[in-house]
Amino acid sequence: MNPAAFSEAYEKRDGLATVAIERWQDNEHQLTFDHVADEQPVALVYNGISYAVMMATPCQLEAFALGFSLSEGLISDPSELYDTDILHTEDGYEVQLTIANQRMAELRERRRNLAGRTGCGLCGTESLQQAIRPLTPVVGTALPEPSAVEQAISQLLGNQPLQQKTGALHGAAWCNLSGDIKLACEDIGRHNALDKLVGTLFLKHTYLPNGFALISSRASYEMVQKACSAGISTLVAVSAPTALAVRLAAQANLNLIGFARPGRFIIYNRSDQAHGIHR
Amino acid sequence: MNPAAFSEAYEKRDGLATVAIERWQDNEHQLTFDHVADEQPVALVYNGISYAVMMATPCQLEAFALGFSLSEGLISDPSELYDTDILHTEDGYEVQLTIANQRMAELRERRRNLAGRTGCGLCGTESLQQAIRPLTPVVGTALPEPSAVEQAISQLLGNQPLQQKTGALHGAAWCNLSGDIKLACEDIGRHNALDKLVGTLFLKHTYLPNGFALISSRASYEMVQKACSAGISTLVAVSAPTALAVRLAAQANLNLIGFARPGRFIIYNRSDQAHGIHR
Repeated sequence: MNPAAFSEAYEKRDGLATVAIERWQDNEHQLTFDHVADEQPVALVYNGISYAVMMATPCQLEAFALGFSLSEGLISDPSELYDTDILHTEDGYEVQLTIANQRMAELRERRRNLAGRTGCGLCGTESLQQAIRPLTPVVGTALPEPSAVEQAISQLLGNQPLQQKTGALHGAAWCNLSGDIKLACEDIGRHNALDKLVGTLFLKHTYLPNGFALISSRASYEMVQKACSAGISTLVAVSAPTALAVRLAAQANLNLIGFARPGRFIIYNRSDQAHGIHR
Repeated sequence: MNPAAFSEAYEKRDGLATVAIERWQDNEHQLTFDHVADEQPVALVYNGISYAVMMATPCQLEAFALGFSLSEGLISDPSELYDTDILHTEDGYEVQLTIANQRMAELRERRRNLAGRTGCGLCGTESLQQAIRPLTPVVGTALPEPSAVEQAISQLLGNQPLQQKTGALHGAAWCNLSGDIKLACEDIGRHNALDKLVGTLFLKHTYLPNGFALISSRASYEMVQKACSAGISTLVAVSAPTALAVRLAAQANLNLIGFARPGRFIIYNRSDQAHGIHR
């Protein structure tokens, strides 16, 4: 297997690529092909001005663009995003967004105040004081029933076709109060998967009090922040939350459930409006 | 459980915090306390100039600062980092680095050329053409023996004390050619864990050809890039690689192994200098 052989085997598809692999199992070694998740640079360009380049799985990009714009506070309502065009170039994907003039003026101002950097952190954040964005508290709601949480996690993998093929993608799903998954999105980045879900919720005009969000990943600070920015009242994570995520969930009145596994889960914060069976 | 009760239960420790939780298991519901992983803003300040704020687990920060500087190409040799001071403030941690003047001049120039942004992507990257940094190929080496890979993964969790307590932390470990773990680092971010490992390798003057890196996570683009920048020749991931990670590993001559589990793994790329038993 060398780069040339690899290039021949590499075929771009919608979120998937095929590569030559050598599988080692039970002391035997086999040359074969396998699916891997596509990961490409996706540039977000607002009114002609490049704002961010994300590494993402290039599917559901229209929903991603809307969700990112909302969850990062670049627009405050979906009606402020007028148009989204997606270009596939040799170097990746360019998503061209047209947003309301007032929001664009704020974006330019924010951009002027930030200094550039590299690496993967809180992009453009210069100081510790700027690091944690103020959160708008969400509308409190009752915790979902334990049976609904269990139902939702039992349906998650079945709603992740790319994950089934690659084992590399995070999922974010919208579940009704019975725990049935109504919408699901995938991405190599857990925050991108949630952004795609947020965008899809608004594209489908979903009424948020009628359900909860389920994520296949841990619940870090940014997942709580994005959920709150989008107006989601309950976030259920398959894996652990961080201390900061718990603290912010408490401040923002967000129902936060972690380690959601068959037969068990942990409630890290419950809304003070909760009237669920645990109260 | 409300924010006030939460604050009382919240105690900062070295990488850990304690929170009040409600555990739901086997149809029973229990009020108790649990450990969660600390996640804090960590500002990296070079020669007095703020460069990046990362969300990270605040332990092994000296190694993190050195590893980040090397893996992001801000310095090209550990000798160019003269001094590291770590301040704990109310808002997080500030790591003050003093680097060589020549490198600082380059950092200022890079900083001037970048425009700021928010969100979590390729920070400061403005265009698709800039998104993927050129890789320096690594020195090719033989693949580790299958028994060494198996030995290493069997030792990983035992070398992750914070993960054992929280279930929220990624690990990056350095293994000798027999698969014994010699160094291990943890962080809520997989890239931070690898940066901490890179820093520790250089702080301990580890001879890189004598081992391989094992990561508890997936192998995304940035993990391959950081490994190559640090001169690591073999990267073994417990989970899946992305298509871009495989492509860059092939370009950079990096041995890349994924899905490293008991009794099996997948070779996604092998160095053309490999003389291992699979050839």
